[in-house]
Amino acid sequence: MIDLYTASTFNGQRVSIMLEEIGLAYTVHQIDLSKGEQRKDSFLSLNPSARIPVLVDHDTESGNAFVLTQSTAILHYLAEKTQLLLPKSLQERARVYEWMNFHAIDLGSTLFSAFYLQRLIHSRQPQAAKQLSQRIHELYYFFDQQLAEQEFLAGSSYSIADITALPAVISQEKTLTEYVHLTRWLQQLKQRPAVQRGIAVPCNS
Amino acid sequence: MIDLYTASTFNGQRVSIMLEEIGLAYTVHQIDLSKGEQRKDSFLSLNPSARIPVLVDHDTESGNAFVLTQSTAILHYLAEKTQLLLPKSLQERARVYEWMNFHAIDLGSTLFSAFYLQRLIHSRQPQAAKQLSQRIHELYYFFDQQLAEQEFLAGSSYSIADITALPAVISQEKTLTEYVHLTRWLQQLKQRPAVQRGIAVPCNS
Ligand SMILES: N[C@@H](CCC(=O)N[C@@H](CS)C(=O)NCC(=O)O)C(=O)O
Ligand SMILES: N[C@@H](CCC(=O)N[C@@H](CS)C(=O)NCC(=O)O)C(=O)O
Repeated sequence: MIDLYTASTFNGQRVSIMLEEIGLAYTVHQIDLSKGEQRKDSFLSLNPSARIPVLVDHDTESGNAFVLTQSTAILHYLAEKTQLLLPKSLQERARVYEWMNFHAIDLGSTLFSAFYLQRLIHSRQPQAAKQLSQRIHELYYFFDQQLAEQEFLAGSSYSIADITALPAVISQEKTLTEYVHLTRWLQQLKQRPAVQRGIAVPCNS
Repeated sequence: MIDLYTASTFNGQRVSIMLEEIGLAYTVHQIDLSKGEQRKDSFLSLNPSARIPVLVDHDTESGNAFVLTQSTAILHYLAEKTQLLLPKSLQERARVYEWMNFHAIDLGSTLFSAFYLQRLIHSRQPQAAKQLSQRIHELYYFFDQQLAEQEFLAGSSYSIADITALPAVISQEKTLTEYVHLTRWLQQLKQRPAVQRGIAVPCNS
């Protein structure tokens, strides 16, 4: 009933982890970004902005397929649809949104800038690199402190905020061992079978 | 009943526009970022990550003040609290999340990288600048196309997706005239008294 167009990237893995967690059956369609498959007409008709992930839900009230992009919007849609991984109270939900945005925006855009700097800027830029890495450290420190006080990112229950954060952390695990609370949270989540299955999509599909 | 800690930035203006739109009374506390007021203890006790905006809602069920950061999480919380500017149906809501994320993440992180490039990188980097500006153009083009088909970003009703996008567009208005649908949308929203009042916070407070 669900088609997922994805690749082995953080944004794609968020959605496959979510689908595994909520137990909805889905078909994986791997989009090979290095071959430019995101620019084929068949894919552009789903997402004209040429990005994965894209979710197509065929199980809708109207019977029409519902096509959705943006990994965090997809997590949110699936959580509302199944009433899973999103708390019921107004304030607890807001805490989930806050931490989803911290990861997807603050940490995400800083990592993205660091990547740009490394990939696009060929002369050495020690000052810029230093400022970005200091900012990244501050963001991880803040993230770590939250997990000193709370079991999960947005409080006492596992939520779509944790899933938003997880793929990037898994991929950088070796560089994050100084953050002990973050590491405790990571080890705990990595034991979940749904996380193990979701993170392996699409490579093992 | 609401305190808003803010500055004249896109993230701050999103929240003041929202509060004006929903008509909740609020007290503005201006944080002068250029003077480092975000690093004062009194502010850090509200947001240890030293960023505006911060909303403090005193009108809660428990009677305890509720402190929330992240501009888009605040918009979402206020929309759920008042049942305004967020559609009722699952699919229409997901469309709002999709466009909020497009603006806050895809466009936001690209603009942020361009800003970093300009501010931190002193030697000329024509190739990097060209790639970033091409990406920014593609994102604005996609945004414009959406507004060719829809009155508002997420469909036929004004929502927190439009408010997420608006402050950055207002500030860059003069460079965006080639995007005719975006310009139509912008002119329409700029006529709203709540937008005019909200965008002027905190300077006119
Ligand atoms: N904010 C979007 C970002 C999507 C995105 O940037 N996808 C990348 C891979 S992670 C992509 O498909 N890039 C293809 C390209 O740039 O050509 C989301 O969270 O889904
Ligand atoms: N994703 C956050 C970003 C908040 C943010 O970056 N705020 C900036 C101003 S727009 C800030 O307070 N910067 C202070 C500093 O960096 O010291 C949001 O949407 O609220």
